[in-house]
Amino acid sequence: MRRSDAAGFVSFVGAGPGDPELITLKGLRRLREADVVVHDRLIPVELLSDVRADADVIDVGKAAGRHGVAQDDINRLIVERARARGRLVRLKGGDPGLFGRLDEEIGAVQAAGLPFEIVPGVTAATAAAAVAGCSLTARGRASLVVLATGTDHTADETAGLDWDLLARIEGTLVFYMAARRLPSITTLLADLGRDPGEPALVVEAAGRRDARIVSGELGTIAEAARRAGIEPPAIFITGPTAGLARVSLARLLEAGAYA
Amino acid sequence: MRRSDAAGFVSFVGAGPGDPELITLKGLRRLREADVVVHDRLIPVELLSDVRADADVIDVGKAAGRHGVAQDDINRLIVERARARGRLVRLKGGDPGLFGRLDEEIGAVQAAGLPFEIVPGVTAATAAAAVAGCSLTARGRASLVVLATGTDHTADETAGLDWDLLARIEGTLVFYMAARRLPSITTLLADLGRDPGEPALVVEAAGRRDARIVSGELGTIAEAARRAGIEPPAIFITGPTAGLARVSLARLLEAGAYA
Repeated sequence: MRRSDAAGFVSFVGAGPGDPELITLKGLRRLREADVVVHDRLIPVELLSDVRADADVIDVGKAAGRHGVAQDDINRLIVERARARGRLVRLKGGDPGLFGRLDEEIGAVQAAGLPFEIVPGVTAATAAAAVAGCSLTARGRASLVVLATGTDHTADETAGLDWDLLARIEGTLVFYMAARRLPSITTLLADLGRDPGEPALVVEAAGRRDARIVSGELGTIAEAARRAGIEPPAIFITGPTAGLARVSLARLLEAGAYA
Repeated sequence: MRRSDAAGFVSFVGAGPGDPELITLKGLRRLREADVVVHDRLIPVELLSDVRADADVIDVGKAAGRHGVAQDDINRLIVERARARGRLVRLKGGDPGLFGRLDEEIGAVQAAGLPFEIVPGVTAATAAAAVAGCSLTARGRASLVVLATGTDHTADETAGLDWDLLARIEGTLVFYMAARRLPSITTLLADLGRDPGEPALVVEAAGRRDARIVSGELGTIAEAARRAGIEPPAIFITGPTAGLARVSLARLLEAGAYA
């Protein structure tokens, strides 16, 4: 028993990128122990079959339409349900600390005086590289990886990032939630001086059995992804190691069709 | 059975950051199925008890002293042993695609005509943030994370990175294998204009039960880490969300002493 009786204890758990086998042993254990599970839309639904029959399962990803439950309401829900029932697992897709609004939820939990922990998970960036059969780094050519998202759910899809600087970074750039923004991301980077011939990859549903990959070059991949009908969730990778990607026989057999 | 009989099949598996419970279910399954396991030094030794009794276990991390077996020899070993025995697991600390020389080993496996797969893992960056109780991103303040290493095993410990550009990045910087290089990393960043008052963290042995954390500011944390006797492996995090780090009661009970 890890909670202080009825006081409530919150575990922020990374569910991994979509394959139910890509959760950690610790994450799965927390899920099995949980009295309450509050989960996002992009988690492997198969994991919910491991939750105790008497536990509450609350989906905050699709209850209120496209953007789900408002963040303030999620924060309140976490605190209330943890106090009421005890061990609460907040299950997030990928890793909780990357683009998951974890800071806001921790703030609410701490303000309520509840103890918490974070159980890290496999993030979509490394899962996307894995399914494509490539590394994100390479000695002497890519000793730096940038993980980015430009949306922040604002109207301007390129807000919040220094694109001039991103264009100049020598290494690998990875953009989360990139499916809809591929034309603007790739155009900005190339217009600001990044080599349009740089190897690039788009991976749809990395970590799921129906993952699809489009490989090409920075300057033309947005159009290739459009033609292939790439849908969210998708990861965009551009940089020298993206050219090393080769879908191995094993992945092809396991993951199904590739573009 | 996933291999094509005796032809050999290589699974590059991420062991996670040190806690044996932070491997994925899939990674553990591959380890249990393996005919041969070739592993690095920084993997949780507890995992090796899950390997079959008749499997070969080869440690390439410490056989030849400080830098271990030469990369060319590891590449050759992987190909030879996979061909000889069948299912080979190449077990790497953290995630295989981040700072793990995965591209070089894949190159050797592909040149030999062997099929392979990559099973991603929890990387030390997210594990370090998790143990410190903080996020690596925050809406509006950190929509970008840089994962970096400057060593590349060259004599010049700051080689290969554009420090001027790193100093100007608005977001979170994470440096792997940073224990010995903290004075040079922090001095370079501050000298090139990064705010010396920015929140910063050093996490030793992230993901292990004996993890230790030093929190402070960019300008002074190297000295604080030196006084605390921080040893490799250590992750260095600097950026706005590092200031949100609060070691929760749960982590304190589980992980032991913190500086």
